[in-house]
Amino acid sequence: MLVYLNGRYIPKAEALIPVDDRGFLFGDGVYELTRGIRGKLVYEEGHGLMLERGMRELRIGGPEVLTREGLREISERLLTENGLAEGDATVYAQLTRGVAPRLHVFPENTPPTVYMSAAPFSSPLELRRGGVSAITLPDIRWARCDLKTVNLLPNVVAKQRAKEAGAFEAILLRDGAITEGSSTNVFGVIDGELRTYPKSNYILPGVTRDVLIGLARNLDFVVNEAPIFAEEIDRLEELFLSGTTTEVQPITKLDGQPIGDGRPGPVALALLEALYQHLGLEASVAAR
Amino acid sequence: MLVYLNGRYIPKAEALIPVDDRGFLFGDGVYELTRGIRGKLVYEEGHGLMLERGMRELRIGGPEVLTREGLREISERLLTENGLAEGDATVYAQLTRGVAPRLHVFPENTPPTVYMSAAPFSSPLELRRGGVSAITLPDIRWARCDLKTVNLLPNVVAKQRAKEAGAFEAILLRDGAITEGSSTNVFGVIDGELRTYPKSNYILPGVTRDVLIGLARNLDFVVNEAPIFAEEIDRLEELFLSGTTTEVQPITKLDGQPIGDGRPGPVALALLEALYQHLGLEASVAAR
Repeated sequence: MLVYLNGRYIPKAEALIPVDDRGFLFGDGVYELTRGIRGKLVYEEGHGLMLERGMRELRIGGPEVLTREGLREISERLLTENGLAEGDATVYAQLTRGVAPRLHVFPENTPPTVYMSAAPFSSPLELRRGGVSAITLPDIRWARCDLKTVNLLPNVVAKQRAKEAGAFEAILLRDGAITEGSSTNVFGVIDGELRTYPKSNYILPGVTRDVLIGLARNLDFVVNEAPIFAEEIDRLEELFLSGTTTEVQPITKLDGQPIGDGRPGPVALALLEALYQHLGLEASVAAR
Repeated sequence: MLVYLNGRYIPKAEALIPVDDRGFLFGDGVYELTRGIRGKLVYEEGHGLMLERGMRELRIGGPEVLTREGLREISERLLTENGLAEGDATVYAQLTRGVAPRLHVFPENTPPTVYMSAAPFSSPLELRRGGVSAITLPDIRWARCDLKTVNLLPNVVAKQRAKEAGAFEAILLRDGAITEGSSTNVFGVIDGELRTYPKSNYILPGVTRDVLIGLARNLDFVVNEAPIFAEEIDRLEELFLSGTTTEVQPITKLDGQPIGDGRPGPVALALLEALYQHLGLEASVAAR
C-alpha cells in the first residue's frame, strides 16, 4: 500500500515518524476521514472545510501545506495508485504540528507533518438492515468536541467499553442529554420528529450529519436540532448513528432495552436509501 | 543522543515510529517525566507508581513490558550513555498501545511501544527567585485529568495562550475553582494556610505536589487539600506552581494583578529551599 507522507508517495512500511513528532508526543494534530467512491472523494467540500477549520483554529499548517484542492488531488492519486479507483474506499488524512523538541508551546518555523493513506471499504449491509445494539456512557470528553483532533483517547476507551459490552457503539450523555457516539453522530425520532444534538462545542459537526439533515428535509421529515434527553430515551421511536463509514446505522437496542419495536425504523431506512442514492451506490441493497 | 525504543538503545535520529502507532493516531498512550540527578532517578517510586497506574487504568502494557525496576535501569543507562550521570537531567518515558490498523477498539496481541529519552536540565533559578506571571483560563479538559496521557492538546493550547500573553503558565479554573496549571500543580496561601486542589479526577496528582505537602508539614505549615475559589484570588498571600522541572515556582502576578506584595512569599521560598535540600541540590542558591 502506497501512502503520502510530507510530499512523498512511499510504501506504508517506510512511512515512519520521528519520536519527536507532536502527534506522537501530544496528540497535537487534526485528521479527516473521507469516502472515495469510484476514485472520487465524496463530500470533498464538507470534509475539506472541516480539516481547514481544525487547522485554522489550532494553527496547524495553512494553505501552503495543504489546500482543499491538494487534499483532493493526493486522495485521488492514492486511490488510483492503490487500485482503489473502481470501488469503495476511505482516505485518511492527518496533520500534526510537526517535529520539535518536547515543549508544550507551539514550535516556531516547524513544518507540519502531513500523512495520508487510502484503504478499501465495504459497507456491512447486514448491520444496516438488521440494526445493532449500543450502550450509554457519560461523556467525559473536553469542551471542544467540535474539533476533529487526534486527542481521541476518551473515544477509544468508550468504543472499547461498547465492544466489551457486546455493543456496536457507545452513546455519550453529557448533562443529561445524548451528545453523540464515540465516533458517530446520533439521531433519534420522538413523536415523529427527527432530533439530533445541535452544532456546538459538544459535538463534532459531522459531514454525514449535515447531509442527512438535508436529505430528511427533502423527504419532508421534521428535523429539530435539539437534544434528546435521558428521560426521553424510553419514548424513542427510532435511534440511529451517522458517519462517513457508519452511514445510517439503526440502533435497535440501547443498554439492553429495545428501541421502538426493536427493529430498524422507517425514518432510518428511508435515510439509508436516500444516502446510498446520494452517494451513487446501489440503492436497492440498502433498504430491504 | 542515544534513546531507548522497544528494547534497543539507538541514536535519536534513528528512533522512528510507524504511522499506525496508536500514539500518533489517537494519542493512545501514557508518559512520565522524571528528574535524574547525578545519574540517579529522583522520586523514582512516585513516578514509577504513576506510570504503572496509567498503564493499569488504560490497559496499556503490563509488567512484562516495563516494570518500575526496568524504568529505573533504562533511565540510568540513558543518563550514563549520554554523559548525563554527573549533573542534572530529565528522563522522558512514553508507552503507547502499539502499532495496529486504525480502529478505535484496543488491538489484540499488539505489543506496546516503549520510548525513553534523557536530556540535560538546568533549573532557571532567576525565575524561581524573582517570580513569574500567570494567566487564568477555563479548564476545558476531559474528566480524567488524573491520568498522565499524551492527549495533551488542551494543555498545549493553554500553555501557548500563556506564552502569547507574556506569562509563564496558564492556571485553569473549573467550576469556579483553581484546579492546576497546564503542566503544573498549583498551591496558594490564604490566611496563612497552604491550599491546593484535592486529589480527584480533575488534577494530576503530581509527585512533586506530594513531596511539597510532606515538606510543608515538616516545616509546620498548615496544609489544606481544598480548592482555591476564583472569588478568593484577591485574598491570596502567595501563589506558586509545582512540578518535576518547575520545582517551586512563585507566581507574583496573575492576570496582571499582583499576588500578595508582588514578590515571592516566605512559604514558597521555604519550600523551594526544602525541596532543593531534599533533591540533594545546592540549597543555598535557591532561596535568597
